[in-house]
Amino acid sequence: MNPIQRLALIGCGLMGGSFALALRRAGLVVHVAGYSPGAATRAQAKALGVIDEDCTSVAGAVHGADVVLLAVPVGAMAESFAALRHTLADHALLMDVGSTKADVVAAASAHLGPLLPCFVPAHPIAGKEVAGIAHADAHLYQGRRTILTPLPQTGAAQMHMAQNLWAAVGSHVCSMSPQAHDAAFAAVSHLPHLLAFAAVNALHAQPQGAAYLELAGPGFKDFSRIAASDSAVWRDILSANRAQVLTQLAHYQNALAQFEATLHQPDPAALQALIQQASAVRGALKL
Amino acid sequence: MNPIQRLALIGCGLMGGSFALALRRAGLVVHVAGYSPGAATRAQAKALGVIDEDCTSVAGAVHGADVVLLAVPVGAMAESFAALRHTLADHALLMDVGSTKADVVAAASAHLGPLLPCFVPAHPIAGKEVAGIAHADAHLYQGRRTILTPLPQTGAAQMHMAQNLWAAVGSHVCSMSPQAHDAAFAAVSHLPHLLAFAAVNALHAQPQGAAYLELAGPGFKDFSRIAASDSAVWRDILSANRAQVLTQLAHYQNALAQFEATLHQPDPAALQALIQQASAVRGALKL
Repeated sequence: MNPIQRLALIGCGLMGGSFALALRRAGLVVHVAGYSPGAATRAQAKALGVIDEDCTSVAGAVHGADVVLLAVPVGAMAESFAALRHTLADHALLMDVGSTKADVVAAASAHLGPLLPCFVPAHPIAGKEVAGIAHADAHLYQGRRTILTPLPQTGAAQMHMAQNLWAAVGSHVCSMSPQAHDAAFAAVSHLPHLLAFAAVNALHAQPQGAAYLELAGPGFKDFSRIAASDSAVWRDILSANRAQVLTQLAHYQNALAQFEATLHQPDPAALQALIQQASAVRGALKL
Repeated sequence: MNPIQRLALIGCGLMGGSFALALRRAGLVVHVAGYSPGAATRAQAKALGVIDEDCTSVAGAVHGADVVLLAVPVGAMAESFAALRHTLADHALLMDVGSTKADVVAAASAHLGPLLPCFVPAHPIAGKEVAGIAHADAHLYQGRRTILTPLPQTGAAQMHMAQNLWAAVGSHVCSMSPQAHDAAFAAVSHLPHLLAFAAVNALHAQPQGAAYLELAGPGFKDFSRIAASDSAVWRDILSANRAQVLTQLAHYQNALAQFEATLHQPDPAALQALIQQASAVRGALKL
């Protein structure tokens, strides 16, 4: 693969910064032009060697770029598409890294017009509970799955290059429809975040909550880790995929009601059967 | 501290085996007499060097012991107390390692009679998702908290020795009432396990659940790790502490309903405020 001559990084945070660093490490990018709304963030990204050029507008960063990565919160995708459509080259590859796909595809369709073939929606399944460029890591995508959800209009050359780039940063690349993606991630990511947020809030709402939390052990630590995630990012994800999240929440409430019934009766054998099922399914997971 | 001349290990599993191995490593035990219902388990415990003597009854293992550790499921405590009361020496230290305390204290009070001063209820906050003597680990209790919940009748000498032994295996030792213990652990351990079991069952109940699970990432992995826990152990814990668990479940359902309302309306600002609270509380936790 030939190196990218100019990568435009829109959103100099954990996800975008890690992508740029990984491409640098692979020798696959010559020049990184970066844009973030805050001047301090851009200066930090430049000081850390993530970007070469500090751009004060989306359009300026995108001008002349052969690859553009939109690494902004899901809620900022539409304005980003609108801001870049006048300077995006028609041969360029444009990707996002959003955790929801149907809403991003809808925003792209509404704003990109004849440039829609440039767009390959992407979701790398990686992250940290800490946000920001300071945590960018060239190995963030190593060994992780990246899901591409191409549109019927997506160009074959762009799709091919997207596959190659994510593979080059160490990802296992697969593709599916935006709708299938959003249904699956409501189940295995978005709802679990909501459940973990609620667990922490339920403790915090009790007068003794802080004292209880001091006694938490390694099980609670792992269970609640995702509850420390960024609130703006997760507001956008849960809002963008709210129909699927509510569907998954209904499934969850059914499962929870089964446990509640065995405790109320009480029916220890039925309780054990429910636990046994969960333990067998989770124990068999290769994660 | 003088070494224990004879430790009786009732229940040769992960928790008990790890305690015996840790005491051996510290040079604090001369002879370990082990009992488990299964001959194969006892043979394995002996082959692994966890126990020195394979005993075919609780009473036989306890005879002549200066320290007895009951490392059996919470549901088997009562029969264990009944089985050991005729051979337990009145100067001995008797401890359990159960995850609930009020029910174990009630069983001890019902069965131990004049030997009640021997008993120091203990809960080491440690474990693995794998059970069994093969996973016993001399470092399991290292750096973990161990909570003692003494009764008014507990002997001062026994309490002192219990504190010294758990400190000797690397634990940070503290004490509280059985009721305070059970309320706190319903909140930070028992309910979270139930929530994780329900999350896995909710996925499994859907036709596409297995396909969804294949897409799960590191967040789901940590969130659901405790769902792989042993079903008999957790049937007993949730059953023994069911009143407190149901109280915590009601708190949880309130917190979940708040999230559901912000999605239904939808109200992204209120949703973000809920997430922000969880993220701040969890982010500040030193775990």
